[in-house]
Amino acid sequence: MCFLKKSDISHQFSPHTRHGEAILHITPYNTSQIKSSSPFSLLASPPHLTSPHSRRYIITRLPSSQESVQSERRVTSSPPPPPPPRLRCNRSRVRVFVVGAAAMAILSALGTEVFIPVAAAVGVAFAVAQWLLVARVKVNPAHAAAAAASGGSKNGGYGDYLIEEEEGLNDHNVVVKCHEIQTAISEGATSFLFTEYQYVGIFMSIFAVVIFLFLGSVEGFSTKSQPCTYSKDKYCKPALFNALFSTASFLLGAITSLVSGYLGMKIATFANARTTLEARKGVGKAFIIAFRSGAVMGFLLASSGLVVLYIAINVFKLYYGDDWEGLFESITGYGLGGSSMALFGRVGGGIYTKAADVGADLVGKVERNIPEDDPRNPAVIADNVGDNVGDIAGMGSDLFGSYAESSCAALVVASISSFGINHDFTGMCYPLLVSSVGIIVCLITTLFATDFFEIKAVKEIEPALKKQLIISTALMTVGIAIISWLALPAKFTIFNFGAQKEVTNWGLFFCVAIGLWAGLIIGFVTEYYTSNAYSPVQDVADSCRTGAATNVIFGLALGYKSVIIPIFAIAVSIYVSFSIAAMYGIAVAALGMLSTIATGLAIDAYGPISDNAGGIAEMAGMSHRIRERTDALDAAGNTTAAIGKGFAIGSAALVSLALFGAFVSRAGVKVVDVLSPKVFIGLIVGAMLPYWFSAMTMKSVGSAALKMVEEVRRQFNSIPGLMEGTGKPDYATCVKISTDASIKEMIPPGALVMLTPLIVGTLFGVETLSGVLAGALVSGVQIAISASNTGGAWDNAKKYIEAGASEHARTLGPKGSDCHKAAVIGDTIGDPLKDTSGPSLNILIKLMAVESLVFAPFFATHGGLLFKWF
Amino acid sequence: MCFLKKSDISHQFSPHTRHGEAILHITPYNTSQIKSSSPFSLLASPPHLTSPHSRRYIITRLPSSQESVQSERRVTSSPPPPPPPRLRCNRSRVRVFVVGAAAMAILSALGTEVFIPVAAAVGVAFAVAQWLLVARVKVNPAHAAAAAASGGSKNGGYGDYLIEEEEGLNDHNVVVKCHEIQTAISEGATSFLFTEYQYVGIFMSIFAVVIFLFLGSVEGFSTKSQPCTYSKDKYCKPALFNALFSTASFLLGAITSLVSGYLGMKIATFANARTTLEARKGVGKAFIIAFRSGAVMGFLLASSGLVVLYIAINVFKLYYGDDWEGLFESITGYGLGGSSMALFGRVGGGIYTKAADVGADLVGKVERNIPEDDPRNPAVIADNVGDNVGDIAGMGSDLFGSYAESSCAALVVASISSFGINHDFTGMCYPLLVSSVGIIVCLITTLFATDFFEIKAVKEIEPALKKQLIISTALMTVGIAIISWLALPAKFTIFNFGAQKEVTNWGLFFCVAIGLWAGLIIGFVTEYYTSNAYSPVQDVADSCRTGAATNVIFGLALGYKSVIIPIFAIAVSIYVSFSIAAMYGIAVAALGMLSTIATGLAIDAYGPISDNAGGIAEMAGMSHRIRERTDALDAAGNTTAAIGKGFAIGSAALVSLALFGAFVSRAGVKVVDVLSPKVFIGLIVGAMLPYWFSAMTMKSVGSAALKMVEEVRRQFNSIPGLMEGTGKPDYATCVKISTDASIKEMIPPGALVMLTPLIVGTLFGVETLSGVLAGALVSGVQIAISASNTGGAWDNAKKYIEAGASEHARTLGPKGSDCHKAAVIGDTIGDPLKDTSGPSLNILIKLMAVESLVFAPFFATHGGLLFKWF
Repeated sequence: MCFLKKSDISHQFSPHTRHGEAILHITPYNTSQIKSSSPFSLLASPPHLTSPHSRRYIITRLPSSQESVQSERRVTSSPPPPPPPRLRCNRSRVRVFVVGAAAMAILSALGTEVFIPVAAAVGVAFAVAQWLLVARVKVNPAHAAAAAASGGSKNGGYGDYLIEEEEGLNDHNVVVKCHEIQTAISEGATSFLFTEYQYVGIFMSIFAVVIFLFLGSVEGFSTKSQPCTYSKDKYCKPALFNALFSTASFLLGAITSLVSGYLGMKIATFANARTTLEARKGVGKAFIIAFRSGAVMGFLLASSGLVVLYIAINVFKLYYGDDWEGLFESITGYGLGGSSMALFGRVGGGIYTKAADVGADLVGKVERNIPEDDPRNPAVIADNVGDNVGDIAGMGSDLFGSYAESSCAALVVASISSFGINHDFTGMCYPLLVSSVGIIVCLITTLFATDFFEIKAVKEIEPALKKQLIISTALMTVGIAIISWLALPAKFTIFNFGAQKEVTNWGLFFCVAIGLWAGLIIGFVTEYYTSNAYSPVQDVADSCRTGAATNVIFGLALGYKSVIIPIFAIAVSIYVSFSIAAMYGIAVAALGMLSTIATGLAIDAYGPISDNAGGIAEMAGMSHRIRERTDALDAAGNTTAAIGKGFAIGSAALVSLALFGAFVSRAGVKVVDVLSPKVFIGLIVGAMLPYWFSAMTMKSVGSAALKMVEEVRRQFNSIPGLMEGTGKPDYATCVKISTDASIKEMIPPGALVMLTPLIVGTLFGVETLSGVLAGALVSGVQIAISASNTGGAWDNAKKYIEAGASEHARTLGPKGSDCHKAAVIGDTIGDPLKDTSGPSLNILIKLMAVESLVFAPFFATHGGLLFKWF
Repeated sequence: MCFLKKSDISHQFSPHTRHGEAILHITPYNTSQIKSSSPFSLLASPPHLTSPHSRRYIITRLPSSQESVQSERRVTSSPPPPPPPRLRCNRSRVRVFVVGAAAMAILSALGTEVFIPVAAAVGVAFAVAQWLLVARVKVNPAHAAAAAASGGSKNGGYGDYLIEEEEGLNDHNVVVKCHEIQTAISEGATSFLFTEYQYVGIFMSIFAVVIFLFLGSVEGFSTKSQPCTYSKDKYCKPALFNALFSTASFLLGAITSLVSGYLGMKIATFANARTTLEARKGVGKAFIIAFRSGAVMGFLLASSGLVVLYIAINVFKLYYGDDWEGLFESITGYGLGGSSMALFGRVGGGIYTKAADVGADLVGKVERNIPEDDPRNPAVIADNVGDNVGDIAGMGSDLFGSYAESSCAALVVASISSFGINHDFTGMCYPLLVSSVGIIVCLITTLFATDFFEIKAVKEIEPALKKQLIISTALMTVGIAIISWLALPAKFTIFNFGAQKEVTNWGLFFCVAIGLWAGLIIGFVTEYYTSNAYSPVQDVADSCRTGAATNVIFGLALGYKSVIIPIFAIAVSIYVSFSIAAMYGIAVAALGMLSTIATGLAIDAYGPISDNAGGIAEMAGMSHRIRERTDALDAAGNTTAAIGKGFAIGSAALVSLALFGAFVSRAGVKVVDVLSPKVFIGLIVGAMLPYWFSAMTMKSVGSAALKMVEEVRRQFNSIPGLMEGTGKPDYATCVKISTDASIKEMIPPGALVMLTPLIVGTLFGVETLSGVLAGALVSGVQIAISASNTGGAWDNAKKYIEAGASEHARTLGPKGSDCHKAAVIGDTIGDPLKDTSGPSLNILIKLMAVESLVFAPFFATHGGLLFKWF
């Protein structure tokens, strides 16, 4: 037995030093025989720093109460050499040199404990404030009637809003009509979401049981503490309790995601009619209402995601104490829950909205030649409900899932990095701190759109939204710099697959920043390929001259081409952030890309709200000028929606890679060698999964749309006076068709994604599963980007022809020309691509990765049955 | 110094034993100090068989002249342990036990030397015989006129063919017209190919210089012999000469591929009018002519590919002697040459044919409502030329490339397996022997279609073609079993990335067979998804009821779905064949899939020939009954073409993987770890390349088609009397548009594929390049399959509606209905997918792999500049 004494360590450490590195000059030596009586404990000797004559250790200052004997910990990747038979402690050979030392972070643990909830609270307060501003526009006809009866201003309670009078339309009637339509949409959406949540609820409950059983079985449901995965000589909490907490956090994530989607839908259906009414005053006023509503959703979601995660960590910590490994393993369930919910929300909502949209358009616009959202179209209510359940609730759940997963990925990677070993609370919470700063930054950014400047003309809308992205990115860069300086030690050490890496706080800042800026680049490339201000979409529009076929060929080619730069941006981010801080760098890069989520969501949600507002204007029979204004808002929304999807996909790629890295580490896989057939078959099958998934979702949309078309045609043919506007269409049947189809059709693709990791992990083991994850990631990201952009480009090519804003566009139009018809066909094909398949794919890759990570302990213990049998 | 004596080896070896394994019980020992005086030399001690107390060696019988002292060879992957200071030879510790021994193959080297060329000669003779049978149908009008003038039978020389007289058409005129059209097509195709070959020739010459310079620079253009890569203590030929021979075999491959494509085109344009004329006699006769012509091409190509490779090996061997490593490294250039040529042939031909086809259809069928191939359409000649340069010459070059590469992959993997170490000529030539057997088997199979049975009705065509596949697969299984038994030792050892594997001849038979049968499964799945006899295509046709948009959505979904089973088939083949015989297993599985190439090509070529025959019938103004017959042949051809593409893609996946394995081995990469950022960025960028490539080719087709449409419209508008049939269209301008477009547009995608490995390897090094290859492979194979099947399904959905053969089909038709118009749009979109992008992608993945392999020595020496600089 050999004691490391205080005097063995040279005094290059300052009194504030928390950890550093030391070289011990020793003969090959059983490290477990070294005990420390110094104020530092030896932590690990990474194998690549081990020579026969010296070992390099991570040392860390002991809490003062433990300055006596303390056993050191080893990382599993450095097994001790076989004990030489006659070794005695030879003090002359044990010398410790301090080669590196890191100071403590500036921000104290208490500061962190305060800052995170405060930032979340500020976010919630801001959301409430925005909501109150939106609520000031009144749409309640009872209230309006009362105000009118009480002898208020001539126009009831709205007099001061009505700068521009509608000609020939009774104002009170318009408000009543808007209210009716809004109520119908809101009720339809609520009823669909409740139906959806019932089914998903059943699925989630079953899956929760699966999680508990699978994870509990890892150590045969034993309630005894077990050696830790990464520090074998330390005891961690029993697997049974990890299973319990994982299940709890899974349900917590699912419920938070569900609530996020539901609240988003409520806000959107609250805001849509208000936007319509404000559009009477001018495009600027309408923009503000739509954007504020988006902001309500964005801030509520970002804040609630943060605060729930934060509370969960603190509550779980009461049980886990300093078992950070178990703590964050359990917390990962939160990401899984959020993403599972998001999957069903995206797929179900996506099928709902696109079945209704495609069905309504095919009969209404193409066959009957009536305008979009015409109240005579029986599918029109279903279409508008779809915007809210698909583009709002689905997207809300989706981005919440991304956010939850990227936080969990960063936390779990941190827990197995040196943060985890020296348990610096502020350092561990760095991912949450970045998100907290993001809320503050987005708050300031929002003011630029709503308060500092005012939109006066249509052409200012798109630049205003783009400015939001640029301002938030620029401010966030500063924010990250500050928080990295405050929350991180100047230098610290990261572990990665047994290797060790020294990272500075500036390096980590750079990782977050590169993710952030890569997101912006992806956003702008997406804009270039999907906005009709640039040549790619104009070329697609031009190809409509020769019909729908060339339009489709050009659109597909555009989508394929739009993949190139985003992929290079992602590749560079991965390489640089990995070079700086290994997998942790990638995890925080993903976090960086999502750090301005509140602004991103505000911009994203604004589109469907404007779309709905236009629909309400049309259905309420308001003048065409209102519709033109909402259309202008909507067109800008199309591009920003594509940008939002670009962000979502880019961050999904980085998050999945980080989760993948954590999974591999947790499952004890040393290398994922493409040349091993187990990995390669996983890789090729994984690359196939996005195709399988897309086939399912697209076919679902197609079949549901066929049913919708038949129903709409039937109504037009059988309801007398429908085309003339005297008969009343049966909206409810169309709503029911969309509901039934989406509920039924979301199960198979959902099951594919949820079951694949379980089946592959259990039957083929962690190596094949690693291949599947990598394959799905590299293939899925391409299809997701190309599908989103192809769809966006077709949509805007159609809008380009419709708007006829340039000489070139006018040669292609007007509405109803052959070119326009070809463009409508492209737009219809693009609908399921950009709103169902494409955005669901990023959930697919993330969800499979996070699920694998959650089940990693099970797979590592019981996986690969098939190969074991044969 | 320690000598291994004869007596050290126990006498479990029979006198015929060529090699086996031995355990030496020794203390840790510098193996270079062991010398052998036994009749066996020690070859290698794979690391996983090395324990501190014993090593397991591969031993091989020495040539009797060398029974004296012989230094042993080591594989590079087992570096000797550091020499312990005081080791002396301790004979008591050196004992050799023979643990396994393999007998020699039954087939002698001489037998091999005879069998391969004989099989090739038989193939050529069979092709010539088929050609003579086709040539018996006369189309030369001079000959016809002479025969008529000489007072022969009433109908000139064709009397006995004309069982069914054409009503109202002068027979002699028909023949003259057919001859004219055939001449025009043939001249157009020849002139295009010559133009194409000029450009490609320049490119190839430059690339040949690049190969020479890059490979020559590996050892600084030194003419001195160098230590071998795999056996460091043996001297191999200098890199300069390897460079020279690689360049020569590259040019040889390119020229063979070029000649294959050219001959194919000549045969097809020779046969098309003959098929038309025979169609007058009945569908069976027409089928025989078309199929025989396809067989001419198939057998010529398979035989010439085999014989050129065989001669090249024998000639190169004169220089290389027993330096098998250098020999097969040089021979790999043959595969690269074949594939490079194929790339340009496929892309150039694909753009040509689809620009003409899409352009002709969009104006002729959609706008002007005139039938396909109507002589009034100015693009009609270009369209028919396109079939010959794209579907015939391009496909011929493509499959020749696959074949050359799979042979080279198997040979080069064999050269670094134990075959290479004990230099068994018959064993080394096993891949060529399999191909030789394939020619014989295909010959018998062909007789089933042409001689044993006769096609009498339309509905017998497709089953007859399917039967060809089944018969050839079944016979080939027997053939492989026989040749495996004859040509392979009962047991032998394979090396793979430093590991060692024992393989039986039956195991290797199983590898080839699994590839063969996986090909058949892929073929049948492809048939299920693209033939209009089954529900998938019928569903797509049904979706045309609601317009082109749903047709496209369903078609894309079908393509995505059709990927599932082929990918599982490929994955299982990979896993099983790798488990049995490592990378060599995968290489021979690919070879198995391609072993029936002659039959596959015959079936494949038959389609475009029938298509052309229909075009000639239409243009010559023959009766509709003739056209119906050729259409029936063509419809069956569509499905078989899809099956052929399925084979090509499946084999490409296996070949690429084998080439990839060889590259990794040759470049000295130990593992390709997905978790290394260098590999991962390669993986994700590689997965993007097929999208980039598809974007280029699809856009090219689109742009060229736009130009064609404008020209055709211009002619219809400006040439008086064109629609009425009194004006003559200007075919030449359309031919020129297609030619110019394809020559110009084939350069960028070609450059992308050819330059990517060079740039990545040189700048980023072999690890990133490995990632790129794996990524392109797993992603490209999916797009290729889905694109081919989507296109095939759309084409046959259209044909389904046109044919109106069932109750369901009749509700959708007839020609010209809205459903049919929607189906035509789908068909047009599918054209570039199935004939340009899709089939080119399998060349992309193979070509990048084989190019990487050829340049591996350069990359291993000078690669990764960028990472070296930073």
